[in-house]
Amino acid sequence: MNVAFKEPKPALRPLDAIAEALLLPSGIDGVYARTGAFESVVDAVAALISRHRELGAEVLRFPPVMSRKLLERSGYLKSFPHFLGCVCCLEGAETAIGGAVERFENGEDWTTELAAGDLVLTPAACYPVYPLVASRGEVPADGLIFDVAGDCFRREPSRDLDRLQSFRMREYVRVGTAAQVGEFRRNWMTRAADIAGQLGLTGRIEPASDAFFGRGGKLMAMSQIEQALKLELLVPVRSAAEPTACTSFNDHRDHFGTAWNLRNAAGEVMHTGCVAFGMDRLALALFATHGVALERWPTAVRQALAL
Amino acid sequence: MNVAFKEPKPALRPLDAIAEALLLPSGIDGVYARTGAFESVVDAVAALISRHRELGAEVLRFPPVMSRKLLERSGYLKSFPHFLGCVCCLEGAETAIGGAVERFENGEDWTTELAAGDLVLTPAACYPVYPLVASRGEVPADGLIFDVAGDCFRREPSRDLDRLQSFRMREYVRVGTAAQVGEFRRNWMTRAADIAGQLGLTGRIEPASDAFFGRGGKLMAMSQIEQALKLELLVPVRSAAEPTACTSFNDHRDHFGTAWNLRNAAGEVMHTGCVAFGMDRLALALFATHGVALERWPTAVRQALAL
Repeated sequence: MNVAFKEPKPALRPLDAIAEALLLPSGIDGVYARTGAFESVVDAVAALISRHRELGAEVLRFPPVMSRKLLERSGYLKSFPHFLGCVCCLEGAETAIGGAVERFENGEDWTTELAAGDLVLTPAACYPVYPLVASRGEVPADGLIFDVAGDCFRREPSRDLDRLQSFRMREYVRVGTAAQVGEFRRNWMTRAADIAGQLGLTGRIEPASDAFFGRGGKLMAMSQIEQALKLELLVPVRSAAEPTACTSFNDHRDHFGTAWNLRNAAGEVMHTGCVAFGMDRLALALFATHGVALERWPTAVRQALAL
Repeated sequence: MNVAFKEPKPALRPLDAIAEALLLPSGIDGVYARTGAFESVVDAVAALISRHRELGAEVLRFPPVMSRKLLERSGYLKSFPHFLGCVCCLEGAETAIGGAVERFENGEDWTTELAAGDLVLTPAACYPVYPLVASRGEVPADGLIFDVAGDCFRREPSRDLDRLQSFRMREYVRVGTAAQVGEFRRNWMTRAADIAGQLGLTGRIEPASDAFFGRGGKLMAMSQIEQALKLELLVPVRSAAEPTACTSFNDHRDHFGTAWNLRNAAGEVMHTGCVAFGMDRLALALFATHGVALERWPTAVRQALAL
């Protein structure tokens, strides 16, 4: 399904100018300090997305770390081990930790003393939702909708501003029958294209695939495209020729339902799906399209964002 | 310096009721999902703090991770190695990462394959500021003020809701002469006590110390208290007898100025200081004081928060 949602195309601003004005380097590729102007746009886009929240959606905000065991059970390690960030610490007695500090002070590698703990960096905002649903028992007949957000991490160092290692993701998550999830996803494709249009962004929605790990992953990616389980809203950020996925529409089928044994009263395994907004990418798309000076953005766009 | 700032004391609500209504367990002590109601209070407190922002303060928001090298140079590893969270990943060739996945699938410990990378979890919101200031050269005669915030991490698992491993910190940071930092800190003690008063919170400001590592750390903590380099705004959250530090007022002397060679035109090494707001703790203090039902909070408090 290809949905073009805006004509004509404004000229893109080069990302370097945006970086200089809005994102400050941290010494690490893909990790940036954000200026007040950048954050004001992220906040405004978040508020706009909130205004489209469906009645009955449960709002949850997650910290940037989550239980390693729960992420393992969700199957993440099998599909995306190369992206995972695990929180490792200096544990144990004072002498052990003191030994590591001594290594550091002697200019040696002290990180050999680190031990993996029970936390990982959350790689997508919806992972903590499924165990939570599981803990509540039977899924009601109407299913469930969540509004979630959190800072996410993926180990993908890159100099491209639209590929961060640490980034903000907002999601609406649907838990229900295959039909309920399908309807939710169709509705959100229309709605997200409409929102992008209001923001003066050009783009299209196209089938896509996740960057699954390894050779086996290539087959999974092909199957994902073939079944159109992932669609992405592509918006020019770096260039019109290589647009950036700013929002994705995901049908997980029964993946999380099976992993977490999510069932309704009839005992059916639940399907899940989500629409995921890349908040930093949406802000970048806006700056690339309308320029770094907020006060010169088109009036309609500023009104849509209540800026 | 002890500053009492509010009478009389309202009765505290037990934290268990707050937890049940506002924070959802994640399977890991000190890590919680936050409900919409909890977040609305965190956001409202943040906006209230913003309204007290000084003219000319530069706004920066940081991701939850930062450069390991920069944190090392700031001296963190020597003082707080026990709190540090380091981001470790599966690096290298496909076969190496595949081997770790295989270990996981065989029920073995796969975390032995993790390698420390160039990122750590940020332990306090101001650490990324000092290298940034250093990169800009000479500090102007008036010094600098920053408004910073970020998700912070400290490896301190606890069942106490007011001691999270992952928490939000907002800070105003001052860079300048000893006199400029001293004045900034005095002003903020008055202002923060005033804000707490507006929020209907009771409490006092007292000298405190950081939880420095090890036996040597005990001496550093004693010296910190003796010199009153750290003061804390203590507010009853768990109990009136053991109030919780919700805001701290820190004088770093020339610690960061020396580490980062921050100097003014006269070549003087700069002093730094900060006022740090524990956003989750302030929200908890409000719920503990006024109850979990926002609509029943005192009108004056709701007005102060524009709720």
